[in-house]
Amino acid sequence: MSPAGRIGRDVLTNYPDADIGADRRHRGLARGNFPCCPARLAMPLRSYPHTLELRHAFTIANFSRTTTPAVMVEFEHEGVTGYGEAAMPPYLGESQASVAAFLARIDPALLANPFLLEDLLPAIDALAPGNTAAKAAVDIALHDWVGKQLGAPWHRIWGLDPAKAPVTSFTIGIDTPEMIRQKTREAAPYKIIKVKLGRGYDEDRAIINAIRDVTDKPITVDANQGWKQRDEALAMIEWVAGRGVVFIEQPMPKECPDDTAWLRERSPLPLIADENVQRLADVVKCRGVFDGINIKLMKCTGLREAHQMILLARALGLKVMLGCMTETSCAITAAAQLAPLVDWADLDGALLITNDLFDGMTLADGKIVLPDEPGIGVRKRGAAQLKVHR
Amino acid sequence: MSPAGRIGRDVLTNYPDADIGADRRHRGLARGNFPCCPARLAMPLRSYPHTLELRHAFTIANFSRTTTPAVMVEFEHEGVTGYGEAAMPPYLGESQASVAAFLARIDPALLANPFLLEDLLPAIDALAPGNTAAKAAVDIALHDWVGKQLGAPWHRIWGLDPAKAPVTSFTIGIDTPEMIRQKTREAAPYKIIKVKLGRGYDEDRAIINAIRDVTDKPITVDANQGWKQRDEALAMIEWVAGRGVVFIEQPMPKECPDDTAWLRERSPLPLIADENVQRLADVVKCRGVFDGINIKLMKCTGLREAHQMILLARALGLKVMLGCMTETSCAITAAAQLAPLVDWADLDGALLITNDLFDGMTLADGKIVLPDEPGIGVRKRGAAQLKVHR
Repeated sequence: MSPAGRIGRDVLTNYPDADIGADRRHRGLARGNFPCCPARLAMPLRSYPHTLELRHAFTIANFSRTTTPAVMVEFEHEGVTGYGEAAMPPYLGESQASVAAFLARIDPALLANPFLLEDLLPAIDALAPGNTAAKAAVDIALHDWVGKQLGAPWHRIWGLDPAKAPVTSFTIGIDTPEMIRQKTREAAPYKIIKVKLGRGYDEDRAIINAIRDVTDKPITVDANQGWKQRDEALAMIEWVAGRGVVFIEQPMPKECPDDTAWLRERSPLPLIADENVQRLADVVKCRGVFDGINIKLMKCTGLREAHQMILLARALGLKVMLGCMTETSCAITAAAQLAPLVDWADLDGALLITNDLFDGMTLADGKIVLPDEPGIGVRKRGAAQLKVHR
Repeated sequence: MSPAGRIGRDVLTNYPDADIGADRRHRGLARGNFPCCPARLAMPLRSYPHTLELRHAFTIANFSRTTTPAVMVEFEHEGVTGYGEAAMPPYLGESQASVAAFLARIDPALLANPFLLEDLLPAIDALAPGNTAAKAAVDIALHDWVGKQLGAPWHRIWGLDPAKAPVTSFTIGIDTPEMIRQKTREAAPYKIIKVKLGRGYDEDRAIINAIRDVTDKPITVDANQGWKQRDEALAMIEWVAGRGVVFIEQPMPKECPDDTAWLRERSPLPLIADENVQRLADVVKCRGVFDGINIKLMKCTGLREAHQMILLARALGLKVMLGCMTETSCAITAAAQLAPLVDWADLDGALLITNDLFDGMTLADGKIVLPDEPGIGVRKRGAAQLKVHR
C-alpha cells in the first residue's frame, strides 16, 4: 500500500458517504494492507467537509439554494499549517465527496518540497481533468504554507501595494422588488451593488428599478448568460447604462462568442467574461469578444493560475475582475491577496454566510483591507466553533 | 532641494565625465543649496562604473570590441544591501553616463517601501523611455533586497525547482576557422555551442564546418538579422539543420516580420526572436512570426518584466530562451533565477570576462547550478578586488 493510499483512507474517513472502496480499487489496492509509514509523509493534507449556511436564499438565473457545500483543507509540514478551501456551488459539478476523492489521489511524495509550486501544482492539475475547486483548495493551502515560511503575505511577495485593493461589490440575488429594496438597504456599508439578472427583461428592469428606489450607488450586472438575443441584449444594456450600471458580466450564453463580439462593438458598457473564462487558456479567447474577465479561484484552480491570468489579461489589454463563490474567509482572503492588481472586486462570499471559520480580509467603508498576516492572511477561529473531524 | 537632487549629485560624483549641472538644471535646482537630509532617505541607491574586460575580442555581424561598459548598483535600506548591474553593449545606445543620469532621476521617496515592486518598477520605467539597462540595474538590486528580506532566493519565491535549470550554451564569436576551432576546443566544458553568424553565407558555412571539425555537440545559431533574402535564409537554415543545429535566433532583419513568418512556415528549425523582442508588449507580436523568444534582462528592464514575458510566452505557445549581454555574475545570476522556467539558456556572459566582481551561478557539467543564497543569489568578492568609489 502506497502512502497515497494511506492518506486516501484518512481523508475519506471524514466523509461518511464517500465510497472508500472505490478509491482503493481505483489504486488496485487490497483492503487491510496498511504498512507503517512516517506520519508526516503519510498525511500532510487533511480535510473536512463544511456546509456553508447562506444568510439569504441565493437565486440566480436558473435556480435557488440556501447552502453551499465546501471542504476545508489543512496542509501541515515542518510544523507549519497552511489553510485551504474548496467551495462548490452545485452547478459546477463538484461535491464534498468528489473533492475528498480527488485529494485522496495526491501522492504525499509530490508534496515533499512544498516550495516547488510551479512543478507540483501542474502535477496535481494533471491528476484528473476538472476538479478545479479541489485543486484550488490545495493551491491555497500550499500558498498559505509557503507564505508563512517566507514570513510575508502574498500581496507582499507579489510586490503589491495593499492600499490599492479596490472596494468590493455586494451581491443581491434575484428576488421580489420588495425584497430587493430590503436587501439594498441592508447593503448600506457597501459602495457598489452587484445584481444578478437574466430571468426576463421585465423582471430585470423591475430589479434595477427597485434598487434605484433605494440608492444611487453604482451597480454592476451579472446576466449569467440570461439574454439570448443579441439585439434584445443590446437594448437591455442601453437601458441599464442610463441607470448607473458600470459593466455587464456574461450577457449572453457562453456558446455565443460571435454574438457577444457583435454586442461588444455596440455596447456602451464594458462586457466581462464569466462563464466564458475559467482557466488560463480561456483568456486569449476573450480578446475581441469581451472587454475583461472575471477570475474566480474555484474555477481557475487557485492563486497560481489566477495570478498568471491577471498578467496575461493585462498584456492583452483586458480588464480584470476578481470574483468568488460563497466561501469562508479562507478562500476569500486568499483571493483578496490579488486585489491590488484588479479593476473590480466582488469578494463578498464570506459576508453572505453565517458560519465562517476564519478571520481574514475585512472591509473599511466598503474597501478591502488586507491583513498583514503571512501567507494568505487568515486566522482560524477558536476550536469550539469548528466542526473538525480528524 | 529635493532628496532626489541629493542622490543625483552623490551618484554622479563617481562619473567624472557626467554633466551634473545638466541633471540639476533638469530639476530646476540651484547650485549650493543642499539642505541636510536623513542619510537613508537621501541615498538608498549607490552606483559605480565598471568596465568589463573580455577574454576574447567579441565579433558579431556588424562590429568587434574588447570591453563592455557596465554600472554596478547597490540599494541599501534597513541595513540590507541589494546588488544590481547595468551592462551596455554600445549598439543599444546606453552608456555609463546615461545610466548615472537615469539613476539620478529616481526620487528616493519612491523607494521608501521597496517591497512594492509592482508599483515602483513601473513608476521608474515611466521616468524616461528607453534606458532599459539602467532600469534593469534597479530592478535587480530591488529584487535582491526583497529576496534577502524574505530570506529566500527568487527561484524559490517563484516556486521553481532549481534542478530544472538547463545547460547553458557557450558563445563563440565570428572569427577565422582556425580561431573557431581553437575556441571550440576551449569550450569543452559546455554542452551546447552558440555561434554568431550573418556576415555572409560562405563565411557562415565555414564557421559551422570549423566547429564540426572539432565536435558534434549541438549548435545554436544567432544570425543577428544577417540573412537578408528569405529564400537564401531558408536554404541556409536547411543546410545548418543537417549539421546538428537546434534553432536559429533572429535570421532576418527585425523590419521584416512578414518574411520571417514566411520563413517560419518552411523552416525545419525553430526560429527565436531576439532583436524583434525587447519588452512585454513585443511578445504578442511574435506569435505567428517566431516559434520562441530570447529574453534578456538588459533589454526588458529586469526580472519583473522577464518573469511576466515568460508567463505570457507560455500562454501564447511560444518557446523561451534566456539570454544575456557580457555581464558580471551579478546580472547573470539574477537571470539564472528564471532558468528553471525556460527551454534554453545562454547565460555565459560572466564566463567571457576577466574581471567579475561577484560569485553566484556556477556550472556543473555545463548545467546551471543556482546558489541557495537569498535574493538574486550572489556574494560580492573581497573589497580589495573592487573599484568602489563612494
